[in-house]
This record gives sequence, structure tokens and C-alpha cells, in this order.
Amino acid sequence: MNTGQTWTVGVTGATGYAGGEVVRLLAGHPHLRLAGVHANSSAGRRLGELQPHLLPFADLEVRPSAPADLAGYDVVVLALPHGESAAIAAQLPEDTLVIDCGADHRLEDPAAWARWYGGEHSGSWPYGLPELAGQREKLAGARRIAVPGCYPTSVTLAMAPALAAGLVEPDVVVVAASGTSGAGKAAKPHLLGSEVMGSVSAYGVGGVHRHTPEMAQTLGAAAGQPVRISFTPTLVPMSRGILATCSAPLRPGTDAGAARAAYAEAYGDEPFVHLLPEGQWPTTAQVLGANTVAVQVAVDPDAGRLVVVAAVDNLTKGTAGGAVQSANIALGLPETAGLPLVGVAP
Amino acid sequence: MNTGQTWTVGVTGATGYAGGEVVRLLAGHPHLRLAGVHANSSAGRRLGELQPHLLPFADLEVRPSAPADLAGYDVVVLALPHGESAAIAAQLPEDTLVIDCGADHRLEDPAAWARWYGGEHSGSWPYGLPELAGQREKLAGARRIAVPGCYPTSVTLAMAPALAAGLVEPDVVVVAASGTSGAGKAAKPHLLGSEVMGSVSAYGVGGVHRHTPEMAQTLGAAAGQPVRISFTPTLVPMSRGILATCSAPLRPGTDAGAARAAYAEAYGDEPFVHLLPEGQWPTTAQVLGANTVAVQVAVDPDAGRLVVVAAVDNLTKGTAGGAVQSANIALGLPETAGLPLVGVAP
Amino acid sequence: MNTGQTWTVGVTGATGYAGGEVVRLLAGHPHLRLAGVHANSSAGRRLGELQPHLLPFADLEVRPSAPADLAGYDVVVLALPHGESAAIAAQLPEDTLVIDCGADHRLEDPAAWARWYGGEHSGSWPYGLPELAGQREKLAGARRIAVPGCYPTSVTLAMAPALAAGLVEPDVVVVAASGTSGAGKAAKPHLLGSEVMGSVSAYGVGGVHRHTPEMAQTLGAAAGQPVRISFTPTLVPMSRGILATCSAPLRPGTDAGAARAAYAEAYGDEPFVHLLPEGQWPTTAQVLGANTVAVQVAVDPDAGRLVVVAAVDNLTKGTAGGAVQSANIALGLPETAGLPLVGVAP
Amino acid sequence: MNTGQTWTVGVTGATGYAGGEVVRLLAGHPHLRLAGVHANSSAGRRLGELQPHLLPFADLEVRPSAPADLAGYDVVVLALPHGESAAIAAQLPEDTLVIDCGADHRLEDPAAWARWYGGEHSGSWPYGLPELAGQREKLAGARRIAVPGCYPTSVTLAMAPALAAGLVEPDVVVVAASGTSGAGKAAKPHLLGSEVMGSVSAYGVGGVHRHTPEMAQTLGAAAGQPVRISFTPTLVPMSRGILATCSAPLRPGTDAGAARAAYAEAYGDEPFVHLLPEGQWPTTAQVLGANTVAVQVAVDPDAGRLVVVAAVDNLTKGTAGGAVQSANIALGLPETAGLPLVGVAP
Repeated sequence: MNTGQTWTVGVTGATGYAGGEVVRLLAGHPHLRLAGVHANSSAGRRLGELQPHLLPFADLEVRPSAPADLAGYDVVVLALPHGESAAIAAQLPEDTLVIDCGADHRLEDPAAWARWYGGEHSGSWPYGLPELAGQREKLAGARRIAVPGCYPTSVTLAMAPALAAGLVEPDVVVVAASGTSGAGKAAKPHLLGSEVMGSVSAYGVGGVHRHTPEMAQTLGAAAGQPVRISFTPTLVPMSRGILATCSAPLRPGTDAGAARAAYAEAYGDEPFVHLLPEGQWPTTAQVLGANTVAVQVAVDPDAGRLVVVAAVDNLTKGTAGGAVQSANIALGLPETAGLPLVGVAP
Repeated sequence: MNTGQTWTVGVTGATGYAGGEVVRLLAGHPHLRLAGVHANSSAGRRLGELQPHLLPFADLEVRPSAPADLAGYDVVVLALPHGESAAIAAQLPEDTLVIDCGADHRLEDPAAWARWYGGEHSGSWPYGLPELAGQREKLAGARRIAVPGCYPTSVTLAMAPALAAGLVEPDVVVVAASGTSGAGKAAKPHLLGSEVMGSVSAYGVGGVHRHTPEMAQTLGAAAGQPVRISFTPTLVPMSRGILATCSAPLRPGTDAGAARAAYAEAYGDEPFVHLLPEGQWPTTAQVLGANTVAVQVAVDPDAGRLVVVAAVDNLTKGTAGGAVQSANIALGLPETAGLPLVGVAP
Repeated sequence: MNTGQTWTVGVTGATGYAGGEVVRLLAGHPHLRLAGVHANSSAGRRLGELQPHLLPFADLEVRPSAPADLAGYDVVVLALPHGESAAIAAQLPEDTLVIDCGADHRLEDPAAWARWYGGEHSGSWPYGLPELAGQREKLAGARRIAVPGCYPTSVTLAMAPALAAGLVEPDVVVVAASGTSGAGKAAKPHLLGSEVMGSVSAYGVGGVHRHTPEMAQTLGAAAGQPVRISFTPTLVPMSRGILATCSAPLRPGTDAGAARAAYAEAYGDEPFVHLLPEGQWPTTAQVLGANTVAVQVAVDPDAGRLVVVAAVDNLTKGTAGGAVQSANIALGLPETAGLPLVGVAP
Repeated sequence: MNTGQTWTVGVTGATGYAGGEVVRLLAGHPHLRLAGVHANSSAGRRLGELQPHLLPFADLEVRPSAPADLAGYDVVVLALPHGESAAIAAQLPEDTLVIDCGADHRLEDPAAWARWYGGEHSGSWPYGLPELAGQREKLAGARRIAVPGCYPTSVTLAMAPALAAGLVEPDVVVVAASGTSGAGKAAKPHLLGSEVMGSVSAYGVGGVHRHTPEMAQTLGAAAGQPVRISFTPTLVPMSRGILATCSAPLRPGTDAGAARAAYAEAYGDEPFVHLLPEGQWPTTAQVLGANTVAVQVAVDPDAGRLVVVAAVDNLTKGTAGGAVQSANIALGLPETAGLPLVGVAP
């Protein structure tokens, strides 16, 4: 490991929420150096006009985001709408580390891609969730990485240990609360502050959210068999954070002790995932702006279900932090380099 | 029906959130007249010090809340912690309409009371959820009414039609998001604005919330058989509102059309419960401050579940509005008298 | 006064925040009946799609808003961008009560109009702030009414008594905090929930906000001399409400007693304006959804200033409630008819 | 400068908001190492119970906070209520760097202390606002530092350049909006989430807030003459952040160019204070969690006033970040060491 080296990073989609969060994290990274910001519609403007919090980078000019504009970086982060990254990646050198925060290369099954996104599948890249079994090996040295979706990050980390340990039936019900930044920066009336403050709403109900097949993929891998997912996302009045409340039917013999032991074993050595002490439940505030995940588990014998709650910051561990974490692994850097371990609370 | 008459109302616990909401609604009621406010610890103070929004009543003196202090009203609303109402009601005349916003008289099963609240059961009173089958008949002329809990109101209205129509198995999973007013006005550190703003958290996880047996009671009655409930409440950064996301396994033959038909039939004539048009999902903002309920239903064939989402204002339809609605029925008034039908949005 | 009569009301701009609030208030008005909703771009859609909280009116079809479409109502409320109302009003009968929630007819001085809005002035209409001296007389029987701006409502009610009584120099500094609904429903990136939650910002700084000349007009009238206004609006993370913090240099002899006396006299008989008891300061929550105003005044001898704070709901007393209040006066109805006196709190 | 060295830090009051923020910042500091946490009432508990976001330090035991408990650290940070720090500091070695986040040693004038806080003055320590003229020299090598109040930090940085340059009369009006964390973690009813969400309120109106004499001290020093301050704090629905809107009468000859030049000169070389480009106004979101300050200035010729708006995070630059910045200077470290330069937005 050569930690004295510095890699240059170009971020495209830097004017959006995910891209902005990548830039924020790079500001504190000892080995990755922001070398350029790119975007489509805002090219030519100062970054500070569009991302007022990125004060040290306010005078950077936003450059276009065609593949040619992205040449020359050691690392390229793509924070773009789905469907745009494959064409860009194809024109970047094979030894450039390309990290896609979008959905294009997450799903392994072309049929799932066709059903949920439509069109031709671009193929899958190593999936940037290092906490999954065997995943660090796949990320080490990788030069193409697919960053997980924010909901799948939270739900996978919540349920994978239980499914892997055979504690529950492969039939998971998830209701997740998300802050509004998960919906992006495009101005739509239902995302106005006036609409979302003081209000909670459900959307994408009935199994139609595109993150569903991704959860089925990760949890199916953990379970070693297909997993059914009922997923309902809700929008809550905060900018950042996801709280995923997940449950599944208990298998015979699963009690509170077995459940806790499975999670303690799964996450005992993980630098970012914290199984909370008994009786303490996750809050999104405790992980805000950090790359951490707070998890807690309970057994409900009356309902016959295991209930697991996980909190992540959708922009940090759920997107940009996960991207940096995977980049650290791919480049042989310390996995925690540049990643906040403490949430910004209260 | 004699709608020209006016009934006097005394509210005890008027300095809390539920009691304050009762007072707010009485301000606009054509037949119920606030005649006195009572509380324990704040007796002797001006109501305006403690409830700044009740401007027209600011100069009312808060009086003590012993049974003798509550004599002489036509209607007495008890918005007190559980365990206090039975003793008060026993000393009020039988023809005084006593409405208990607390839990004491909701559960019919003494064993359930003993398990969830402890101590001796005070017996059950007519349950103030008029939308339940046969319930209006029980409330007509009643002089003792138990107001449902806020979560049970939302969950019961969400799931009763499906269970009554046999659309689903009696095995319900609920994750509900609640505003902070549901936790009351007692100052606790985890309820500080600094803690709850920008944060979502789960609490009472694993089947331990006291509203669970109440849901089992109402939904069991609707289903005609015992119903298992997995209930997880979450706290979200808003003052008012509950969004209950409920699901249960589909029974063979249940499709979207059957589901919609069951809800349309159940609520077609209800003045307060609105089945939204297809494609529109409930928000708590749309029912804020109103006695209304917004409901939507979907079938998820992949997950094999029916998903129902309901939004209520926990203080209005979930407590004080439900109390007034039931009082209207008990007194022979129009059921909608004095109850807002339009939410305060945005 | 004939309070048995009912007037029909058409609302144009009913799909926006101000128009929606007019509709909400009409739902509870005993003498005004919503007879039609109009808008430009949304004509042909169900109102419920655009205003989910207006549940009782959800199935109303939004109709176009050309003058011909607005014929036949007793009352027409215009909740439109400025510049559109004069042409419409010119084509409506003289005995139709036309209430303009926009800016077109507020300013009396054509030069002020030209400077702040540009173009030709449409003339001024009776100004719908009944609490101003002599204003109720001008509104009685009026058939054209200009509803004040939301900021001018709060600032005028805060400072007029002090200026009228000569307590202060005519040199007022105002910093006002507004909820986001004041910025309207057009989707702009800086009004996204993600941007406004957890953030306060200033805008229109340096004397450039268009409500400034309106305050100069009302306060100048109260003072009987020109008044200088330094006005800075700020945007705070809530949907509704304005808190205006106003101050001006004390004139010799003004002490706390004189200040309080002036406000007590000015507002002692007002149904909507509440001078709070000493030591209690306004909150926007206490007037949310109500047509009320909470006011408090203090003398700061060290700084040599009188400080007055006023809270209003920008959509209710600040716009739609003020419109209904003025309509009540114009039509000879009780001034408080249909107007909530209790805020929706907590 | 020896930046390879590490200093041990003990934090007392670590269970409160200011103390918790100190701990958060130490987690990312290359030269300061958290060595112990202390508090009065919570001694013996795990830090994680009380500060769930401080995940890497969750298992630290909170120790008592008597002077003897604080011995042995290189640096002691006192985040305690005022009145407690002098006695502690007196028992710590002279070469221990003691940083007081409380008010005890901020005011230089014993008479001001007696008037605003009462009791005997403990004397003043070097004031931890390095951006003030001549202040870095006083902080270099210091072993006792008084951290400024959060409001004085924002107001001083907003107005000092204008007063120092003689652009305005020494008669300043400030209205500041603060997040609720400024009010601390003690549970009081008016600070409940239910009360503060959706509401703005004023408090401490009329010149009675204790930060007023501190502003008079700093601004008087900048102006070279006494400065009158009218200060009104308001509470807004967010956890963190202060937006201070300040104004003062223009002196003859002050125009926009002169104003901008004065601020550009004052802050051109400051690492943390950013004069925004013309037309862009500060938001608290852009400095959330960062040690930065966003400032903008405008001239209002009609009102005859200079208006300056400044945004800080009350817990970071306004308290804990300011403490670390001053500690860096005192210890000869790079001033920006360990201090975030990018806000956590959106």
C-alpha cells in the first residue's frame, strides 16, 4: 500500500446532490484530489453558484461532460442519470478507475434490467458494497465500480446477516423513510419545501420502485436463494437520511440471542457498520454526513417476525461515501481514508 | 335531532396537545360550547400561557381536575394519562357524556389490559371509531365513549376493509410514521427540536408498543378471526400526522380491481374517509388539522402482498376530532358538525 | 345586514397557494359558497390532482380563467401573478365584488408602481387591511378590493400604532422571516425541500423587495409623514407564517407604558389582532391557519429603540383570510364570518 | 511549528451540544486527540447513550468533572454553564491550555459582567475570535482562551469591517435567526420538536439577551468608539445555524463599492470567512458543520443603511470550531487543522 500517492479525480454531475457530496468528501481526503468538475447543462458556470456549500471550490469552472472532457484523470466519478455512463466509460482508458453512482451497472441480470429500466443492458460492474461477503476481493484492484442505490445499501445491510444465517424466511417487507435529497435536485412541484415540510407521503407503492430488483439481487445472494421483497418508500421532511424498517418471518429456533449474535458477527469488524447496544435504536441524525450505518435488531414473537432497522445518510454511505469507500479499496488505500466516522448532530 | 340546542363542555387535560386540540375544534362547533378547562399541575394559570394558539380562550383560568371540579357539564372530555379516567367517570352522573381520550376503556379483554398496561381493567366503553361496522349504532345515545388511539385509528381504517372482505391473510405488517405531538408535551430530551429535526428514528420496535393489542382487537373484529400484527412506529420531523404503511399477504384471487372495489364500497359513503383516485398516494399534509383520512391501496403481485397507506392527523381524526365525531353521534347531532373537512396545506 | 343570503364565489388561480387557501376558507364560510375554480395552465384537470388537501372539492374541474369564464359569480377572487387583474376586472360587472390578491391595485402612487413593477399603473382599489384607521369605511360596500401583500400586512400591523401615536421616528428597520409558501408554487431549485429544510437565508436584501413601497405607503399614512423602511426578508424552513421583527428610534418620552398603551388602544377592539400579555412573544405557530395576528412590543432604552414583533400566517391573514375579511365587510356580513380564530398548533 | 506532535484533550460538558461538537471535530483532527470525556450528572454512563452520533467514541465512559478529574490533559475544553469555569481553571496547571466555551471570561468590563450575569467577575481571557484585528497575536501561545458566544461571532464578523472602516454610524440593528441547538440540550417545553417545527418566534427582545454586551465590546473595539446595539434573537425550525441580519446608518460617502472593498480587504486572506460574490446571499446550509462564515453586504440608499448578512453554524464556527481554531493558534498548529471547510448540504 502506497498511501503517499495522490490520485486526481474528475467528478461529472458535480452540480447535483450526489456529485456535490463526492466533492465534499474529496475536500477531506488525504489521497484523492479533486481535479475537475463537470456537468451538462451548467458548463461554464462557477461551481459556487450551483453548490454554495462547496466554498473552497467555489471558483472552479464547471466543464462539459463529454468523454473527451473526462480524459486524463486517475479516477472519474459519474453522478449522472442512468443510461449515460456506459457510453462514457467505453471511451475512458481501462486503467482509469470509473465509479458509476448511477444504476447502469448494478443489476447482473439483463432481464431484470430490461424489465425495470428498459433498453439494452450495459453489463454489470463490481458492486460497491464492501460489507457483502466476498465483495472486498472483487473491488480490490477494480477499475469499474457500480455504486449501490441508497435504499439497497440500507436494506441490504439490514437484512443480509439474517438471511445469510437462515434466521428468517426469504420474504422481506421493507418500509423506508427517505429525506428529499434522494429525489435529486431537479425542481418538481411535489418536492418544494412548502410541500414536503410537515408532511410524510408514500410513493412508488406496490412493488414498482426500481431499487426493488437490486435488493432482490443482493439479498438473494446473501440468502443463497430467491428473496421476495415488498418495498415501500416514503418521503419525510428532512434533506438527508434513510431509515429502513425491515422484517421477515422468523424461522423456527430463531430467538433474540441468535439474532443478535448473527449481527454481531457480521459487523463486529466492520469499520462503518455499528450494531447498536441493546435497547438503542437507529436515528438518521446519528449518521448524517458520515459514512456510517446504525443497525439494530429485535425479535417479535407475537408477530413471528424479525425486525431490523438501519439508518444511513443516503448521500454519504448511500452514495458518495460508498463510492469513496470502494475507491479506497480499489486503489489499495486504507478503506476509511477521507470518510467521516461521526455524524453531524444534533 | 335538535340542532338548535347547545351542550356545555368541560375539557380536562386542556393544557396538553390532545386537550388543546379539543378546545380548538370546539371553537368552531355550532352546538358544543367550551365551558371550562381543567388540568392538574397548571391549575390557576391562564390558558394562554400554556396554549398560545388558543387566542380566543387565552384568558380562561385553568381549574383543577378532580371529579368535583368537572361536575355540571353536559359533556366532559378527559385528555389525561391512562389510569385516571375510571375514577373520575365513576363520580360523574350517568347522563353526562364522558369521552375518554386515554387508553383505559379501549380494550375489551381484561387479560390484554393486564399484559399491556398492568393493573385492574376498568372495563370497556363504546369505541369511538364510527367507521367500523356496527359502531355508529353503539355510539348513538352513548354516555361513555373510548376514543381510539391515534395509530389504531389509522391502521384500522387502512386494513379493516381488506380483512373484512377476505382479501388478505390475517397477518399484517405495519410501519407507521408519526409526528412528534403523538409523544405529548412532557419535555424529554429525545423529543427536543434539536433532536427530531432532520432525523427519523424507530421506537417501540419488536411488538412492544401499547397500541398493538388495540389494533389486534379492531382488526380481529373486522376479520372475524385473530389477526397477527407486526407494528413498528417511527418518529419523523413534523409536529402532526401519521402515515401508516400496512401490508398483508394476498389471498388467492385478490387482484387490484377487487381491492379497489372493497375500499370503494367500505368508504363510499363515509364523510371523512377518502379513497384517493388511482395513482394518488396519501400525504399527511392533506389531512393536517382536518378530521379526514386519505387512503390508497395497491396490489404487489411479485411480493404477493396488498399494500394500504393511510394518512391521518394524529391530533384531529386520531384523537380530538374522533372524539368530537363520536360526541356528535352520541348527542344526535350531524356527524360532521364542527369538524374541518379541509386540511391546512401547504 | 342580511346574513341569511349566500353569495357565489369564483376563484381564479385556485391551483396556487393563495387560491387554494381561499378555497379552504370558503369551505367553512356560512355565506360565501365556492361555485367554480379557474386557472390558466391547469384548465381541464381535477382540482384534487393539484390541491390534494381540498378533499371536498377534489372532483371540481378546473376551468379556464379568461374574463368570460369568470362571469356570473357574485364574488370573483383573483389569485394571479401581478399584471393580470386589471384586464379581467375591466370586463366584469361593476357590481361584482372583485378581490385582487395580487399587487396591481395596492399602490396609490403611479410613480411608485412604475419604479417597482414597471409599466402603466392600473389605479388603486380600496386596500383590504380593515385594521388601518378609516379603512373599514372604505371597504363597506366596495366592489373592488386590493388585498395587501403578506409582508406589508405583518409590518403595517406591527408599526402603525407606534407611528400614529408618535412614539418613534419615521425610520423603521424590519427583518422578516417567512415560510416558503410565500414564494409560491412554481418549482424553482432554491425552493426545493432539500434546499430550504435546515437552512435560513436572506433574499431581496438592500431595499429591493417589491413590498417595500407598500409598507412605505401604509406606514406613511399612519405616521402622517414619509417613513423610511429598511426591509430584509428571510426564508425559513417552514411552509407558512411570517414573523416580522420591526424597530424604530424612540422619540423622547416614549417608555414601556406609553408603548403598551398605544397598542392596547389600537387593538383592544380588533377581533383578529391580539396584543399578547407582557412577557409573551409571538410565534407563527400560534396563528397558523388562522386569521389572527399576534403582536408584542418592547422598549430597549440602551439601544434607544422600540421593538415590535408580529406573527401572521402569510396565506391566511396575510392573503386569503384578509381577502375574506374584507369581502365580509364589503358585503355587509359579520367581519369574522368563516374565519378561523384559533391556530393549528402544535 | 511542530505538527508531528499530538496533544491530549479532555472535554467536560461532553454530553451537551457544544461539548459533543468538540468531540466530533477532534475525531478528524490530526494533532489533537480526545483522551477523556467528562460531565456532571451523567458520570458513569457510556458516551454513546447520550451522544448517539459519536459512534467511534460510544464506549467511552463519562467521568466526573471536578478539577481533579481534569488533570493530566494537555488541553482542557470546558463546555459548561457559565459560572463554573473559573474555579476549575484555577486548579489546572498554568501550562495546560484551558478553553472555556462558556461566558465567564469573555467580558472585559467587570461592570458589564455584574449587570448582565451578576456576581463577581472572573476576569477576561484572550478572546477566541482570530479574525479580529490583533487577535491572533494574543492567542498565539495563550493557555487560557475564552470562546466567543455564537451570536457575537456572527454579528462581529458581519459588522466589524464596516465599523472599522467608518462606513456606518455606530448604531447597529441586528435580528438573528438561530437553530435550536443554541438553546442547549436541557429539555424545556418550548424547545420540544412539536413546538419549534413549523414555527418562528422571537425571544429576549428589547435588549435583554446576554450576548448584547459582548457584541458591544467587540464592535466597540472595531469602531474605536462605543457602539449601540439593538439585538433581537429569533428561534427558527432547524437544529443548527445562525443567520445574522445586521444594519447601520450609512455615513456620507459610503457606497456599494466602498462597502464591498472594505469587506474584501478584511476577509481576503481569511481561511474561514467568505465574502460571497455579488448577488449571492448567505444560507446557513452552506456552512452547516463547517468552520466557515458566509458574508454578504449591500447598500440601501433609500433607507440610508448598510445591510450585512452573515451565516455561521452556531456549534461549529460559533462554538466548538472556534475553540479548535483558537487552540490551533495557541499551540502553534496550522490554523485550519482539523476544521471542516465544506458545509454538509443539502
